[in-house]
Amino acid sequence: MIKVAVDAFGGDNSPYATVKGAVEALKELSDLEVILVGDEKTINKELENLSFDKSRLSILHASEVIDCNEKPTDAIRTKKDSSLMKAVELLKSSDDINAMVSTGSTGAILAAAVLKIGRIKGVKRPGLCPILPTTSGGIIGVCDCGANTDCDALQLSQFAVMGSLYLHAAFGIENPRVALSNIGTEEEKGDALRKETYAILKEMKNINFTGNIEARELLKGNADLVVTDGFSGNILIKATEGAALETMKLVKKALVKNLKTKIGALFIKKDLYKVKDLMDYNNYGGAVLLGTAKTVVKGHGSSNETAVKNCVLQAYKMEKNNLRQAIATAMQNV
Amino acid sequence: MIKVAVDAFGGDNSPYATVKGAVEALKELSDLEVILVGDEKTINKELENLSFDKSRLSILHASEVIDCNEKPTDAIRTKKDSSLMKAVELLKSSDDINAMVSTGSTGAILAAAVLKIGRIKGVKRPGLCPILPTTSGGIIGVCDCGANTDCDALQLSQFAVMGSLYLHAAFGIENPRVALSNIGTEEEKGDALRKETYAILKEMKNINFTGNIEARELLKGNADLVVTDGFSGNILIKATEGAALETMKLVKKALVKNLKTKIGALFIKKDLYKVKDLMDYNNYGGAVLLGTAKTVVKGHGSSNETAVKNCVLQAYKMEKNNLRQAIATAMQNV
Repeated sequence: MIKVAVDAFGGDNSPYATVKGAVEALKELSDLEVILVGDEKTINKELENLSFDKSRLSILHASEVIDCNEKPTDAIRTKKDSSLMKAVELLKSSDDINAMVSTGSTGAILAAAVLKIGRIKGVKRPGLCPILPTTSGGIIGVCDCGANTDCDALQLSQFAVMGSLYLHAAFGIENPRVALSNIGTEEEKGDALRKETYAILKEMKNINFTGNIEARELLKGNADLVVTDGFSGNILIKATEGAALETMKLVKKALVKNLKTKIGALFIKKDLYKVKDLMDYNNYGGAVLLGTAKTVVKGHGSSNETAVKNCVLQAYKMEKNNLRQAIATAMQNV
Repeated sequence: MIKVAVDAFGGDNSPYATVKGAVEALKELSDLEVILVGDEKTINKELENLSFDKSRLSILHASEVIDCNEKPTDAIRTKKDSSLMKAVELLKSSDDINAMVSTGSTGAILAAAVLKIGRIKGVKRPGLCPILPTTSGGIIGVCDCGANTDCDALQLSQFAVMGSLYLHAAFGIENPRVALSNIGTEEEKGDALRKETYAILKEMKNINFTGNIEARELLKGNADLVVTDGFSGNILIKATEGAALETMKLVKKALVKNLKTKIGALFIKKDLYKVKDLMDYNNYGGAVLLGTAKTVVKGHGSSNETAVKNCVLQAYKMEKNNLRQAIATAMQNV
């Protein structure tokens, strides 16, 4: 049995989406157990109209909620009875509960995971790895995307190893193609950190390093994992997300411009919505924190029930396929 | 009279687009003189069918061309008779020719400008500042975008000052809103470099600092200038460009999916092309190198004649409005 704690509060659509998503995941997997963490009364009310295997779902009461506007380090210090901190404490104190999902404040989740749950032995710093859809119909992981603003080459090479193992464990990608985010494709390109990291990555035997990748290639599907520092990695995915959304907004505006375009829109609306769906990374599960002693999946703040379900399935797969153990073994050689 | 040297070779559409673009600029401005640099015979052939004021156009012969696949530092050292190096030498040796435009290799232009033309006194390192269109119909400058991969806070604060003066001189923007590219909006966000830079920018009296900006906000038009290091700045604009193009490709694919969507496409094609035009930064002039002793405008490699014309007009405005002098004065106080 794989046991996953779900922080039922903190996201924009919680507890509705978190409770419903967790229940949907239970229905899909017979060896999954879920512990919903948060206000018991509210959670029970959400559960009232849902049918599920009650023997595999329990509630851990928490009276407080950390919201996205709170300063992470203050929040995790003062709100001991928040759903997030109770979930973290549960993981810390239980040998058989090894994974959690939260759609709450990214900063608070990162701080709580790093400070309270701790790292796998040998991991310098855990890295945040979200998954983006590519326009060729696949996915791409980017690590780190914001857990570490100042990185060194050793950290980046660890992200490469952990990210490769993760893409294999959670998505079944064999021998993931690892690329270094850089400002040119040639080996000598980039800042001091990139040059040093390139030299390390190309010598590593346990990853499939394919060289540098430029930011404009990110969505094309020519790599499975992009390795980057948390600062420029965050810029990379936010710029990508922002530009895609802004472009779709312009397209939408063009469609309602006049009667003629509105008529045209009727014919293509359905297929354009599919483009929007493809770009929506709610459909691809959450971002995982790689290298923490227990599995932590961070869903988008605006996650709906499908996104939450995907996050729970993702946590389940990481545990089922022994990702943490694989990382621990690999870290002995990095 | 403002004299602008135009590197007629090096771009994808040169010399056709460079010669035609330069001539178009001559027609628009009566106090502009253009020196076309490159193979005289080929340039004369391009000029044959164009009508223009011959007294304001001359040719400086150069027998070689630097192409984009050459290593910049090698190219500028070995190809002394290339159109780029001849243009640079012309600027260096002539007191009355103070601006140049090139659509050739970015690396070679940067290397040639920094090493051969030199800096304005007080400027630590010149910064590359491209202009992007915003979805609210305006423009936004981003500096630095790749001239300096490893930056310090002093350099970033100089980019803020030079970029502000540039947006005023070339685009008439009064009191440009300056934002620091960061991974969150709060003052305490970011890596060590961002924290140090924020502290400097907020104390500066000669810029209109508005705080941090996240990458996903870039195209929305809430700032006029984004200040960044050359590494993450390059990632920022390439990710933005890449995601916008990939999204438009998906939209286009959806339009030709089946008979129904093809019919719909007939009604909206024209307006969708306008979206593509809006996103196309050929329409907004080139990237300028801020802080060099003479004015250098770098057009996109794929610049058409309109893009080249815009680059020449941009160089003209920067000279006409005494941007270099304004930077020199400002640098005494940074």
